[in-house]
Amino acid sequence: MAGTVEKKLADMGITLPEPATPVANYVPFVRVRNHLVLSGQICTDNDGKLVAKGKLGAGVSVEDGQKAARACAINLLAQVKAAIGDLDKVSRVVRLGGFINSAPEFTDGAKVMNGASDLMVTVFADKGRHARSTVGVASLPLDAAVEVEGIFEVD
Amino acid sequence: MAGTVEKKLADMGITLPEPATPVANYVPFVRVRNHLVLSGQICTDNDGKLVAKGKLGAGVSVEDGQKAARACAINLLAQVKAAIGDLDKVSRVVRLGGFINSAPEFTDGAKVMNGASDLMVTVFADKGRHARSTVGVASLPLDAAVEVEGIFEVD
Amino acid sequence: MAGTVEKKLADMGITLPEPATPVANYVPFVRVRNHLVLSGQICTDNDGKLVAKGKLGAGVSVEDGQKAARACAINLLAQVKAAIGDLDKVSRVVRLGGFINSAPEFTDGAKVMNGASDLMVTVFADKGRHARSTVGVASLPLDAAVEVEGIFEVD
Repeated sequence: MAGTVEKKLADMGITLPEPATPVANYVPFVRVRNHLVLSGQICTDNDGKLVAKGKLGAGVSVEDGQKAARACAINLLAQVKAAIGDLDKVSRVVRLGGFINSAPEFTDGAKVMNGASDLMVTVFADKGRHARSTVGVASLPLDAAVEVEGIFEVD
Repeated sequence: MAGTVEKKLADMGITLPEPATPVANYVPFVRVRNHLVLSGQICTDNDGKLVAKGKLGAGVSVEDGQKAARACAINLLAQVKAAIGDLDKVSRVVRLGGFINSAPEFTDGAKVMNGASDLMVTVFADKGRHARSTVGVASLPLDAAVEVEGIFEVD
Repeated sequence: MAGTVEKKLADMGITLPEPATPVANYVPFVRVRNHLVLSGQICTDNDGKLVAKGKLGAGVSVEDGQKAARACAINLLAQVKAAIGDLDKVSRVVRLGGFINSAPEFTDGAKVMNGASDLMVTVFADKGRHARSTVGVASLPLDAAVEVEGIFEVD
């Protein structure tokens, strides 16, 4: 039976993807006691296709960047579910780190990152309110528009 | 009554600003037990104005970058005080992450970041000696010259 | 007497360097209980010379980038040994953060970062399997091609 958080996701029309398997010698998450550290997730959709490719400020719009950030957040949730089985066991979204693939003159990274932050707060309410850092990076793996990493506290 | 750390700040002529309120769905800090995770702070002064705007290596000098990094550190301290009430309860500055808004050829990020590191060590002495990572990023929110995030251990 | 991990390193022909001393007001690691937070290490060899200098996608090949990432990982291990004395006390490599000095069009950062990840898994086996984030940054201190930071869980 789906928990409260997963019902919420279903109500929002969100199906969690199969969590992506890293293609290299690392893992999508490491749990140390109640601390769950998640690898950076790029903005793939449930078919593994990039939601937005390229740079903000050079072809990718803020709106598409927000969708990309939201996709990263969904991918983080898929990994959290793989790690702990039930998203209701998340006691706090501690931190998100947002990496925005940016042209040098792009300064709206915070708006883009809201696509990820808003999802967390919609889904987890107050438990979803997290610390975050947002920076514009020179490039990202596979030319993804956005990558988001996370730290969650879990029961 | 101000504690030892705040007296030190006053002696240095530093007044902590009103801690900035995030303009989005995130929070400036999350505390998990004795661990305080702080959102990236940009280099605003006590009036909310950027201390330095633009890129190191393309208009912003190393000296101005150092002032900007120092301002980020002061903003972190304002958030720490908001979180725990008394800066004397800081048992260790664990880590600072420095993001320097950089032209591609700028390689003096470490010098810039010293503006933040020096402040922490001046204020907290040995408790202020932290691990750090410094990287040059393609862009930052609002075109801030520097953003610094932090992890503090608190009583 | 060298422990299992150090024998493994010796078998691989790896001698740990003297751990680099930060040239500023920060420290190479901070330990909080069983949590070891390591400063970003750039890709210097045992003589302190950069293994690769400049940008991926603009002069530095993926192969040289991988060697650089591996050198960063070795430098992390030197710091871990300095912190805890015996690498056999590492219970988990929790997270690596990879910063790849990248031209804007370079998208193979994940391959580069494998140079660090592969070393950790070779040396620590399953304990070496870590969460990671890899991003392409605009510049790095001293124009290093790669910088890697880490979090280790230790006994």
